[in-house]
Amino acid sequence: MPFEVTILGNSSALPTSDRYPTGQVLNVLGRFFLIDCGEGTQVQLRRNKIGFGKINHIFISHLHGDHYYGLIGLISTFNLLSRKNDLHIYSSSELKTLIQPQIDFIKGEIQFKILFHPLDFKKSRQIYIDNKVEVISFPLKHSVPTCGFLFREIKKQPNIKKELIRYYNIPIAEIKNIKAGGNFTTENGDIITHETLTIQPPLPRSYAFCSDTVFYPNVVEIIKGVDLLYHESTFTEEMKVFANSTFHSTARDAAEIAKFADVKKLIIGHFSTRYKKLNLFLNEAKQVFENTEIANEGETYKV
Amino acid sequence: MPFEVTILGNSSALPTSDRYPTGQVLNVLGRFFLIDCGEGTQVQLRRNKIGFGKINHIFISHLHGDHYYGLIGLISTFNLLSRKNDLHIYSSSELKTLIQPQIDFIKGEIQFKILFHPLDFKKSRQIYIDNKVEVISFPLKHSVPTCGFLFREIKKQPNIKKELIRYYNIPIAEIKNIKAGGNFTTENGDIITHETLTIQPPLPRSYAFCSDTVFYPNVVEIIKGVDLLYHESTFTEEMKVFANSTFHSTARDAAEIAKFADVKKLIIGHFSTRYKKLNLFLNEAKQVFENTEIANEGETYKV
Repeated sequence: MPFEVTILGNSSALPTSDRYPTGQVLNVLGRFFLIDCGEGTQVQLRRNKIGFGKINHIFISHLHGDHYYGLIGLISTFNLLSRKNDLHIYSSSELKTLIQPQIDFIKGEIQFKILFHPLDFKKSRQIYIDNKVEVISFPLKHSVPTCGFLFREIKKQPNIKKELIRYYNIPIAEIKNIKAGGNFTTENGDIITHETLTIQPPLPRSYAFCSDTVFYPNVVEIIKGVDLLYHESTFTEEMKVFANSTFHSTARDAAEIAKFADVKKLIIGHFSTRYKKLNLFLNEAKQVFENTEIANEGETYKV
Repeated sequence: MPFEVTILGNSSALPTSDRYPTGQVLNVLGRFFLIDCGEGTQVQLRRNKIGFGKINHIFISHLHGDHYYGLIGLISTFNLLSRKNDLHIYSSSELKTLIQPQIDFIKGEIQFKILFHPLDFKKSRQIYIDNKVEVISFPLKHSVPTCGFLFREIKKQPNIKKELIRYYNIPIAEIKNIKAGGNFTTENGDIITHETLTIQPPLPRSYAFCSDTVFYPNVVEIIKGVDLLYHESTFTEEMKVFANSTFHSTARDAAEIAKFADVKKLIIGHFSTRYKKLNLFLNEAKQVFENTEIANEGETYKV
């Protein structure tokens, strides 16, 4: 049952000859969620052999070009590939205004619906749910309205231990109650606890994506204990003043958030082009939070 | 005195993992003209070490995404790099409507002017001239209004042979007339011809860019005798029916145009992703026009 994220781009705003701007694909139990869509994302999808037809939901954290300029090209390609499925885009409501003229220009041919879902930049919201996964957006603190996203499995009900059902002769009518957390009382008044009667399902796995943001501890409560945290890390500490003034984080900032939130693992990205060696970021982060990795392009990280 | 074109992308509309959509940089005597700007053009400019600050004129042949979706990213990068120089964009008048919302969205910060120059899709026009170069747009025949572009050096005046000036004692007042094509008559009535008195300058060099088009012999008159012709070649002959229905050319079509126009050399590009081996195009074209090359990405072709 896959829950993993593939990094399509780990660079920040300026283009480099060998790194792409932000884009990630999250595979949660066969659902493919695209997170941000910088220029060239569609090429990176193809390089990583992720079928265009699998992507039905796109989450755009904010409207800086390095996070959305690849969207119109991807939509155009969907159209060239005769897409029919609805496409859901979760973003600032302004995105529609920005790209609708270009969509309309190819509209005569477009066979699929594009549904824009506006994000709330004031407080966290559940923006997607199905029977297996939910997605929650939450505000970050950047120079323009920006959201992070939390992807979390829905908690499964526990499984009943069948041999105990038989042993205590538990009626089928009781099973639902026990699964939901109830105990069972036998005919002679003994209480058999929920915990005795059930096998707990695996804990729901979760991934948090913290896009462009200055150090912002308000997110800690929301992303508490996630299995994998992506956090931007545009600069290292010697650029701290510039990081603050441009509303970006340092590697140390990212690691502090990971530590405060007690996450299991941290990956860092969105590196400024001024850094040629990414291990500067890694070393700085590891001093605060050991279980850190660089978000390498083309690499897939299990949640 | 350079006159050369660097190919940034040779692919057609669908993205591939290893080829870029249309983009070319033409260097004419130190002027850098960008021709078309598909997604990823700015990355290709960086890879080919072409300074962003050198580009002041961008020519967009038509408004299919693979020819212009990289423009907004390039404009945004110009802005991030604190550009001050005016940027001239030659395109369908609709381009402004399509990307202005995105430009306005970053406008608070933009320090340079963007000047849109509408193309005429009905007849050929001189759209740029300075003391060394002129650019002429001319209609092609595609599914949307499309122009090709002819870049041509301005013909220099011939140089006077100084030793003959002294020998015939020609007054300075006569020099201008001789340079412009006139003869000189000596005191005793002898006529010394223009040709005798001058050294002819090198012939003006010229490059023609024929973007997306079905086979369209109307262009022959305009591009007659150019030193280098780029002509699209999306398909090979076995896809001729499909090529016609999508208003594209085959390699043979491109070569026929080169032959009719008596150009010195042909390069072909805009290859459909269905072809893995580009030598299929080359072999087909060479049967009609021997001096043909594939427009390889990253390669520079002298005009």
